Amino acid sequence: MSIYRHILVAVDLTDDAAQVVARAQKFQGEGVRFSLVHALEPLGFAYGGDIPMDLTSIQDQLTAHARAKLAELAPLLQVPTERQYVFTGMPDAEIHRLADQEGVDLIIIGSHGRHGLALLLGSTSTGVLHGAHCDVLAVRVGLKTA
Amino acid sequence: MSIYRHILVAVDLTDDAAQVVARAQKFQGEGVRFSLVHALEPLGFAYGGDIPMDLTSIQDQLTAHARAKLAELAPLLQVPTERQYVFTGMPDAEIHRLADQEGVDLIIIGSHGRHGLALLLGSTSTGVLHGAHCDVLAVRVGLKTA
Repeated sequence: MSIYRHILVAVDLTDDAAQVVARAQKFQGEGVRFSLVHALEPLGFAYGGDIPMDLTSIQDQLTAHARAKLAELAPLLQVPTERQYVFTGMPDAEIHRLADQEGVDLIIIGSHGRHGLALLLGSTSTGVLHGAHCDVLAVRVGLKTA
Repeated sequence: MSIYRHILVAVDLTDDAAQVVARAQKFQGEGVRFSLVHALEPLGFAYGGDIPMDLTSIQDQLTAHARAKLAELAPLLQVPTERQYVFTGMPDAEIHRLADQEGVDLIIIGSHGRHGLALLLGSTSTGVLHGAHCDVLAVRVGLKTA
């Protein structure tokens, strides 16, 4: 009955993550395993490299925050620590690389409408869709409850 | 156990359609119903309206061909005639309109890599992802068999 065997759930660090995880739970079944990923964009990219200060410690704090968030979500999908991934890099490229490397057959990611932050987050789900070598489920978040 | 209740399967008229339908079949279950859609781009759009001839009969033939293809796929998902939709228009807009109107909670569509016709077809799945009010499953086709 399981449709997929290894499902990679890509979450952001907002409340939307809970909706994405709730949808992922519906795919639970015999022989299905999950991984969790959050990809942080490097601060240097986001600010164009123009900030005359060392961003390393802030980046480290962001990474620690992301790890804590994944650890909080992990029990819902029985994801062991070694399959909780936090990367710094371009989100779509990192997610594709991980999916290929780990033999993932479905990526689940939240997808927003076109409002507010949506343009940014929407472009991540679009980027993930393109170039993925496996199926991608875009879960509509933000507009309604899952 | 059913994750979704009304699944709209968007197919093109290539052999990829069979892969998309095969994946959709995995979502079959008690209380799940399927619809099938193919959206034809108007020939007048594709050729910029510059052709000094009446394209109506060609468009009618394309529509008939699309209807025949949907009718051929329909038994695999128990889709009755009234839920086999062929539209002429912008594919993503038509698919969203239909999904909203019929209370669809998942759209399944094929998604290609970046090769060959893929750029065109890929942009349809991207367009469908954006602006959809429901979940979208992009089934990777063309790279491997389902």
